[in-house]
Amino acid sequence: MDFFDVATTTRAMRRLHPDPVPDEDLWTILETATMAASGGNTQPWRFVVIRDAEARKRIAAWYLDAWEKTYGPARELMRANPSSAMTYNSANHLANHLAEVPVLILVTIRKDNFRNGPIAGASIYPAVQNLMLAARALGYGTTLTTLHKLHDAEVKELLGLPEDQETMALIPLGKPKGKFARPPRQPVERVVYWEKWGETRAR
Amino acid sequence: MDFFDVATTTRAMRRLHPDPVPDEDLWTILETATMAASGGNTQPWRFVVIRDAEARKRIAAWYLDAWEKTYGPARELMRANPSSAMTYNSANHLANHLAEVPVLILVTIRKDNFRNGPIAGASIYPAVQNLMLAARALGYGTTLTTLHKLHDAEVKELLGLPEDQETMALIPLGKPKGKFARPPRQPVERVVYWEKWGETRAR
Repeated sequence: MDFFDVATTTRAMRRLHPDPVPDEDLWTILETATMAASGGNTQPWRFVVIRDAEARKRIAAWYLDAWEKTYGPARELMRANPSSAMTYNSANHLANHLAEVPVLILVTIRKDNFRNGPIAGASIYPAVQNLMLAARALGYGTTLTTLHKLHDAEVKELLGLPEDQETMALIPLGKPKGKFARPPRQPVERVVYWEKWGETRAR
Repeated sequence: MDFFDVATTTRAMRRLHPDPVPDEDLWTILETATMAASGGNTQPWRFVVIRDAEARKRIAAWYLDAWEKTYGPARELMRANPSSAMTYNSANHLANHLAEVPVLILVTIRKDNFRNGPIAGASIYPAVQNLMLAARALGYGTTLTTLHKLHDAEVKELLGLPEDQETMALIPLGKPKGKFARPPRQPVERVVYWEKWGETRAR
């Protein structure tokens, strides 16, 4: 697939088929993830592939609890607003069906990267983006989630993470029920400044 | 270009030609950046495109100072080791020639994202990765740098950033002198675990 076709149609896909994902596709997706840059090429990432039904069930229960605690109070408000209702319903569907998603990928980083503060993300989220784009190029849907952090200790214990690791994303992956499409974004002209803050230009 | 050809040959390009970059290519690259996901689709990013020669000269001087302070002490050690010498020399070249790079892109995020801790990066570095991949698809070299943070206050003042903004990356962009190629990475089998931490598998 053409690069721009992939990059401009990788929207969050939260309704996924339960069909199993072949190993070879996962290798391709994960190898592409590792082609991303990291500070000093330290490659501080690890990817834990979770396909075991019992493990997915436990993570899904923690995820749903985190979803209810975080977004439950905003439910009526988000559903009342057309611009947030679609995303809310789709995220709500994922939270209630995470156990049925065939593959969950937990992305971790060595904690020593945090000495750099929030810039630590520069050594992990480029790889996460590569992962999601590569998945989309092979026809798989993903979405970048972090809600598992509300049950971080339980997730770490379940998967046996050592003390020096931090979890940075949990990526559900599977064939999507919906269609890939351009994600809703504000016009690029509004977020690009030329030479000085606030100086926009027409395209 | 094919997606996988782009994603597996986007290595750090630090030797760049000074030739100007057409606006239309920058629009394409930046629009692709904005196709990335962000928490709750808040799109908290701004991109400041810097092509003014005087601004580039000032930023380059701060960058070189940061480079010398951070990596100067390790110079001999890094040059003595073949595995780090090439990267050191290339990064040293960039630090000494940043003013000649035709375009610098400063990527910023709203500070309120930091209430999420290091996960804030999840709402900005996917866009940065899209930016670098799109640049490569159009034949431009980039590299993700953060050394400007040592002179963050000066950079913010020069470009007029408001109080609520944080700088997350400075991306030099231009036609590369070297060739795009697969970046040096450890085998994917070593960084992927199956079901449990540490459980590797042969591909």
